[in-house]
Amino acid sequence: MKPVAIRNIPRADADSVAELAKHGSATVHEAMGRAPGLMAPWMRPAWAGSATCGTAVTVLAQPGDNWMLHVAAEMLMPGDVLVVALASPNEDGLFGELLATSYAARGCKGLVMEAGVRDVRALAEMKFPVWSRAISARGTVKATPGCVNVPVVCAGALVHPGDVIVADDDGVVVVPRLQAPAIAAASAARSAKEDATRKRLAAGELGLDIYGMRENLAKAGLVWLDEAP
Amino acid sequence: MKPVAIRNIPRADADSVAELAKHGSATVHEAMGRAPGLMAPWMRPAWAGSATCGTAVTVLAQPGDNWMLHVAAEMLMPGDVLVVALASPNEDGLFGELLATSYAARGCKGLVMEAGVRDVRALAEMKFPVWSRAISARGTVKATPGCVNVPVVCAGALVHPGDVIVADDDGVVVVPRLQAPAIAAASAARSAKEDATRKRLAAGELGLDIYGMRENLAKAGLVWLDEAP
Amino acid sequence: MKPVAIRNIPRADADSVAELAKHGSATVHEAMGRAPGLMAPWMRPAWAGSATCGTAVTVLAQPGDNWMLHVAAEMLMPGDVLVVALASPNEDGLFGELLATSYAARGCKGLVMEAGVRDVRALAEMKFPVWSRAISARGTVKATPGCVNVPVVCAGALVHPGDVIVADDDGVVVVPRLQAPAIAAASAARSAKEDATRKRLAAGELGLDIYGMRENLAKAGLVWLDEAP
Amino acid sequence: MKPVAIRNIPRADADSVAELAKHGSATVHEAMGRAPGLMAPWMRPAWAGSATCGTAVTVLAQPGDNWMLHVAAEMLMPGDVLVVALASPNEDGLFGELLATSYAARGCKGLVMEAGVRDVRALAEMKFPVWSRAISARGTVKATPGCVNVPVVCAGALVHPGDVIVADDDGVVVVPRLQAPAIAAASAARSAKEDATRKRLAAGELGLDIYGMRENLAKAGLVWLDEAP
Amino acid sequence: MKPVAIRNIPRADADSVAELAKHGSATVHEAMGRAPGLMAPWMRPAWAGSATCGTAVTVLAQPGDNWMLHVAAEMLMPGDVLVVALASPNEDGLFGELLATSYAARGCKGLVMEAGVRDVRALAEMKFPVWSRAISARGTVKATPGCVNVPVVCAGALVHPGDVIVADDDGVVVVPRLQAPAIAAASAARSAKEDATRKRLAAGELGLDIYGMRENLAKAGLVWLDEAP
Amino acid sequence: MKPVAIRNIPRADADSVAELAKHGSATVHEAMGRAPGLMAPWMRPAWAGSATCGTAVTVLAQPGDNWMLHVAAEMLMPGDVLVVALASPNEDGLFGELLATSYAARGCKGLVMEAGVRDVRALAEMKFPVWSRAISARGTVKATPGCVNVPVVCAGALVHPGDVIVADDDGVVVVPRLQAPAIAAASAARSAKEDATRKRLAAGELGLDIYGMRENLAKAGLVWLDEAP
Repeated sequence: MKPVAIRNIPRADADSVAELAKHGSATVHEAMGRAPGLMAPWMRPAWAGSATCGTAVTVLAQPGDNWMLHVAAEMLMPGDVLVVALASPNEDGLFGELLATSYAARGCKGLVMEAGVRDVRALAEMKFPVWSRAISARGTVKATPGCVNVPVVCAGALVHPGDVIVADDDGVVVVPRLQAPAIAAASAARSAKEDATRKRLAAGELGLDIYGMRENLAKAGLVWLDEAP
Repeated sequence: MKPVAIRNIPRADADSVAELAKHGSATVHEAMGRAPGLMAPWMRPAWAGSATCGTAVTVLAQPGDNWMLHVAAEMLMPGDVLVVALASPNEDGLFGELLATSYAARGCKGLVMEAGVRDVRALAEMKFPVWSRAISARGTVKATPGCVNVPVVCAGALVHPGDVIVADDDGVVVVPRLQAPAIAAASAARSAKEDATRKRLAAGELGLDIYGMRENLAKAGLVWLDEAP
Repeated sequence: MKPVAIRNIPRADADSVAELAKHGSATVHEAMGRAPGLMAPWMRPAWAGSATCGTAVTVLAQPGDNWMLHVAAEMLMPGDVLVVALASPNEDGLFGELLATSYAARGCKGLVMEAGVRDVRALAEMKFPVWSRAISARGTVKATPGCVNVPVVCAGALVHPGDVIVADDDGVVVVPRLQAPAIAAASAARSAKEDATRKRLAAGELGLDIYGMRENLAKAGLVWLDEAP
Repeated sequence: MKPVAIRNIPRADADSVAELAKHGSATVHEAMGRAPGLMAPWMRPAWAGSATCGTAVTVLAQPGDNWMLHVAAEMLMPGDVLVVALASPNEDGLFGELLATSYAARGCKGLVMEAGVRDVRALAEMKFPVWSRAISARGTVKATPGCVNVPVVCAGALVHPGDVIVADDDGVVVVPRLQAPAIAAASAARSAKEDATRKRLAAGELGLDIYGMRENLAKAGLVWLDEAP
Repeated sequence: MKPVAIRNIPRADADSVAELAKHGSATVHEAMGRAPGLMAPWMRPAWAGSATCGTAVTVLAQPGDNWMLHVAAEMLMPGDVLVVALASPNEDGLFGELLATSYAARGCKGLVMEAGVRDVRALAEMKFPVWSRAISARGTVKATPGCVNVPVVCAGALVHPGDVIVADDDGVVVVPRLQAPAIAAASAARSAKEDATRKRLAAGELGLDIYGMRENLAKAGLVWLDEAP
Repeated sequence: MKPVAIRNIPRADADSVAELAKHGSATVHEAMGRAPGLMAPWMRPAWAGSATCGTAVTVLAQPGDNWMLHVAAEMLMPGDVLVVALASPNEDGLFGELLATSYAARGCKGLVMEAGVRDVRALAEMKFPVWSRAISARGTVKATPGCVNVPVVCAGALVHPGDVIVADDDGVVVVPRLQAPAIAAASAARSAKEDATRKRLAAGELGLDIYGMRENLAKAGLVWLDEAP
């Protein structure tokens, strides 16, 4: 692998990012037709209540080595979310308060990394949103370079530089850059529809009736009995 | 497996449920003599501070498919807790805000599911208690039916419809329906005894003396030394 | 293994403990030169915001058996942190509110145990700090003795009685007793240096420049490109 | 939990066991309609090529304690398979060559245990079939009794004494005692049908055509394209 | 996600595949410069001694549903290896003897699937090579379509249709189609070099000297001592 | 951590190693009184039938970096077993055929490493015994030094240079150097006793009677019933 850092990338359009930011990761993923792009559920926020939406700057880092996280700082623009994949699984604390300070100073809106992070109390106080695989006090070396702004696989999801990252308490979803306008619109439509359904459910209507499921359930073989046989 | 949904089930008596609700899962499990019935520790509350106690309506669902959670809504009565087992391990988000709205409208007191849930921030705001194996934004299909109100194995514990579910930050315990009165009484007795012990421990007495352990420890071979040899 | 409980141990000096208490686990581990001594990241606080620093009293306990946690209570002195290793992996709830009450009454500053704990809400209310591998309502027997105040391996870290335990949201680090003064001093120096760096990063300087990394990165083969090739 | 050992149990009929023994665990589970009863996939044979079929004698044992495995020896009759569940998760080596010698002397046809086993080379030489969660050289105490011949949950499957256990390289399936004749017959029918299908597939026919799937796939929305769009 | 099955794909050239087939997965991955493309180590062969090399036909399947594995059979050409990713993690037995018979009849050289497989004894007897995440007797439904011959992420590696799959006891590596000739050549060069090194090591020379590491080690700070200090 | 390589270490006496080599890891661990010293059960042989016994040369290596495995080669003497701990968890393939060739040329009797290994087929053909946490084709860098012949914690067990390593299909046990003579003698005694017991069990006697357990079981509360209540 040739270590390379790419300075300029195309980013998803700002209007789509702004619209996607209004919806949660679950809604956006549904709006994508549940296509691949959702990271694995072991990616968790470092502090409860985290939520962000921004354009991806990507890093491929080495296990136990956070050198490329310093290189990437220079590529961050306001509104970006840094996405870090590792060359092999590792839970060391590659990111903490100092890097968060640097990233925040550049307008970065959060970090998504399939590794460990540390200084979680400070991150919560700074309100800097972070999703990671682990929390670990273990520091790192700066010995082997990797890449910035190449396509990476992070927590099972393919991320291209400039894709939109939507992350909250439910997980992290990757919206491909060119599909962002369509998925933003579909997310808005879905949210509106869910608002209407929520009201009917709150009033005591059943999903069975709202969605008209009874006939299909019967066709699929479900039998209703009054009592256990 | 024949897909079947059973409408009416016997439920544990309300007095026992009310008494069990006063005690935590750890106390109730001790009162059961630490018999099987405690779910595995990977079942965690979706939001800190969750606690509930109610009668089980059970579901056996398919991986990646939440159809039966809609069917079960119709069987829920006030005071019930829905317990969902999966035909094979799966962490997709089978449950979220919309279903919680529906269940709450029917008086349901919580959900225990060996799968994933989503919309965890909304669940916390609604104060709808949920225990699950994972948090995941991934949605589901509605393609293959399962069962409602059959006995299920959830997180290693056998649950019959109508059993009492006691759940809090420490975990989820299943009290067999017919043993509920005896276990409720034993829980109350145990809580009272623990209150007395707590006062003595807080005053500086040692468990070694309160429980009279020194002699048995010596018999079991424990040697006290003043210094490392 | 001969079951043995050792009453008196040398403890790290109070000044070092007081200085180490001012720094987080990540800073202290860096100050140790990232030597072994950091517990595995599966050791998590039972309640968010926990932090402690004290001298280790150690226990080797049997799976599903908390007898030795009662024996250890007698050895606890104000300022101690109890560290419990298990003879084989186990996640039962060996520790809860009653033992915490007893330990707190003796001035104990926290528990670090590679097993399960329970009564986590009560622990949070008591502000008794606990790090464990799991949370579990499952109680234990008192049938087989173990050891108190022998060297133990807990979560991958070697702990001698009297070592300093520094624990917070980021993890648990073990400072060898005789190295405590040197590591306390190094931690203070490191914190001071980080404060200075933080200010420069917050002002928008890059770590690349502050740490002078650009030349080494180029030597290591990193290539900067303006655009993806 | 009251420790109890039950001497006499009803067992599935010998003809059904003999028929079930001709089929693999996958075929039998399909013949059950994929109902619950398949143990979790972490249950693996201690030596490759293991296969057995027999009637269950059940044990509920304590973590790190194999006392009840000695008690159960007395209950074993020729044709039995011992099924051991643990009161809490544990991977110690509760079973090895000595117990296997004893069980084999009583005509026992194998062991299924959600814990660890040891002496795996000797077990392979003896051709004594064993399925377990782990392999571990760690021995055990004999300190706390459990139960023999009560219903247990083992690796997620409910097992009643006298049920049929079918185990091979693919896993372990539990056939409820009273359903054994029907499931044996269904297994035989399924095997015959699979033989016929296998011949057609080997001759190059496609499952798509044999099972007539093309129309349903189209109805479900699948689109065939000659080239990537 | 639109369910789609693409019939025709470009495949890596036969000469490169033939050359890559001479080398192991570790050598090929080194020849790629250890770039991403190695699947996670939980992908294990169903039977020891498995090894294969071929061009990828890809499938995206649903959890617990093997419908698309039947669709893909029609797309398989001699020399292909089927690579199956799942829409969400699942260990059910989506593949067994019948599908292997069908695939073998079409000249398919193996299966790589991040799910479960069954009939492992039959697969070994057929010498049909399979890498999977789990072994499970659990069968599947055929209810929800997925995709054939779209790019997929399998066990953390991005796979495009037509890429070369090199798999053996050490793991599974994905060689991008257009890079196959270069990587095949680099693999051959690397194997030749390793042969020479092996002879020197077998004769007692040290890697320290062969690779000239002593000076760099000293520069990196390593100190040699005759005795422990 | 200061990188250091220590050339000369005291080793356990040859007679004890020769005696310990006659017994399996389970017998030796029992002879130690089941003291700490058994590695975690995730340490598995790379090829079935592996067994070794020798004196430990220890390495502390960095994640994804096998530089120190080359340094250690120089310290290996005939009869040694190399034990490698990692500074943080990592499953990359730090060891393969080339290093095995080098180690074998120096009379090394095997490798125990809490990381990944590769070239497992070649290792089996060479009959070079290896225990590891994972099998992985992923290669490594040589960038950051560690230590040779310092005490390490490997898979939960403390290993000092010169300790005896006994490893086989059941696991890996560490015998402290100075205790080797006593534990060798105890292992021999235990094996002799087990031979006698095995004969009695094979003849149909029960462990219940051989070990005289019935009375203690009754005292501990076990109740025998003829039928289920």
